[in-house]
Amino acid sequence: MDKLDIVKLGGELLESSENMKTALSSFHALSGHKILVHGGGSQASALCEKLGIEAKMHNGRRITDDDTLEVAVMVYAGLANKTVVAGLQKLGTNAIGLTGADANLIQADKRVVQDIDYGWAGDIRSVNTANLKALLSIGLSPVFCAITHDQNGQLLNTNADTIAATVASALAADYEVHLHYCFGHAGVLKDIKDENSVIPTIQVGEVDELHHKGIIADGMLPKLHNGVMALQHGVQAVTIEKPETVHNEQALKTTVIG
Amino acid sequence: MDKLDIVKLGGELLESSENMKTALSSFHALSGHKILVHGGGSQASALCEKLGIEAKMHNGRRITDDDTLEVAVMVYAGLANKTVVAGLQKLGTNAIGLTGADANLIQADKRVVQDIDYGWAGDIRSVNTANLKALLSIGLSPVFCAITHDQNGQLLNTNADTIAATVASALAADYEVHLHYCFGHAGVLKDIKDENSVIPTIQVGEVDELHHKGIIADGMLPKLHNGVMALQHGVQAVTIEKPETVHNEQALKTTVIG
Repeated sequence: MDKLDIVKLGGELLESSENMKTALSSFHALSGHKILVHGGGSQASALCEKLGIEAKMHNGRRITDDDTLEVAVMVYAGLANKTVVAGLQKLGTNAIGLTGADANLIQADKRVVQDIDYGWAGDIRSVNTANLKALLSIGLSPVFCAITHDQNGQLLNTNADTIAATVASALAADYEVHLHYCFGHAGVLKDIKDENSVIPTIQVGEVDELHHKGIIADGMLPKLHNGVMALQHGVQAVTIEKPETVHNEQALKTTVIG
Repeated sequence: MDKLDIVKLGGELLESSENMKTALSSFHALSGHKILVHGGGSQASALCEKLGIEAKMHNGRRITDDDTLEVAVMVYAGLANKTVVAGLQKLGTNAIGLTGADANLIQADKRVVQDIDYGWAGDIRSVNTANLKALLSIGLSPVFCAITHDQNGQLLNTNADTIAATVASALAADYEVHLHYCFGHAGVLKDIKDENSVIPTIQVGEVDELHHKGIIADGMLPKLHNGVMALQHGVQAVTIEKPETVHNEQALKTTVIG
């Protein structure tokens, strides 16, 4: 089977042009099939603020009303995605920027209203692997932002960590997939102040314990849960690391073990 | 040779959901290979206004400064493009939304500063027909917005009429191309108040005369010049019409004759 690297870049890595340059160069240095998934960062919130759109939150999760979805589509699918694509094209990676609506690649359902209506938040229903494989086969490197669709004309906001893991899982039957969650640290740190305190491996069974001990922060939990899900679906490797190390298997990073 | 329809939709056709529905249904009804190119409409200006970005104009042309480019990328490549793609996917057309940066499809150069610096306005250098043909060959219908790139990391604002004609010209060697310029009227009208006064054919040599007589408005001139250019590059047919008639060759419309 061919190798396929799927790299999730935290939105915060795209906020300074220096960080973005480093992240895109590292992605460019990967040989073979590759997919990038990027988060949104604070640009969407900043634009909401400028436009006087009030942020509605519930348990730290943003509620996506009509205005917020418009801003998310403009910032994620527009400005962030196309800036990344143009930056990769400059380096010579044949990137193509995508939402889940494009080529019908990721279909999602509006999150079911239980206690809370999260608005236009989409939970992934399925990935169109045929179309995605077709894009990879003609030499393109897909760049996904955190927007999907319901196939009934509605765009939806979907967590980028989940997109990365779900796409990785969907392609695990066709490629030897390595899923990289990249953020600003070298890996999951025992001591947040010490970049050398990277935990080299985390077993599935350890996640809850590490969380209770306060070693795994709330923001890291979804990455680990998504990573575990990906391993269970046949993804070969899941690592948590800096963008700089995606093409260096020997580098210090955290590997999630199924 | 296979047939290929290229449909340019004026941005104003996307401003009401009723008009958009009609336009997308008509595009969907075209069989075979097809490409849609859409303008931006007034959404970008409206967002600029909300954000307090002053419109800088010269001879009716907008000067694209840094802030204006950001808004154009957000509105054209983000909101407008993805709304069109999701709408087409709902109908069953396998649309994929694109800028010229995606798959390096349209490379442009920042317009040379002579008397006026138009800012981030891009004049098309070349079309990557290999990648575009590859997308068509896997059954996708490309949907272009009016953003290109310089292959050096810079996004650029490029006139959508010109994109449509240049893409049509570039593919004329490989497909039997029909270029449709769609707007709110049935064709070029002798009398702007009478929808039945469509001029059925306009010869290349007549364009200037019709302009001098005031029959061809300023906004129509670029379409005609682009249409003539496309015919000279081997495009089979160029028509000016409503979206409703793109799949009806017998309907009343204006055909440009080379």
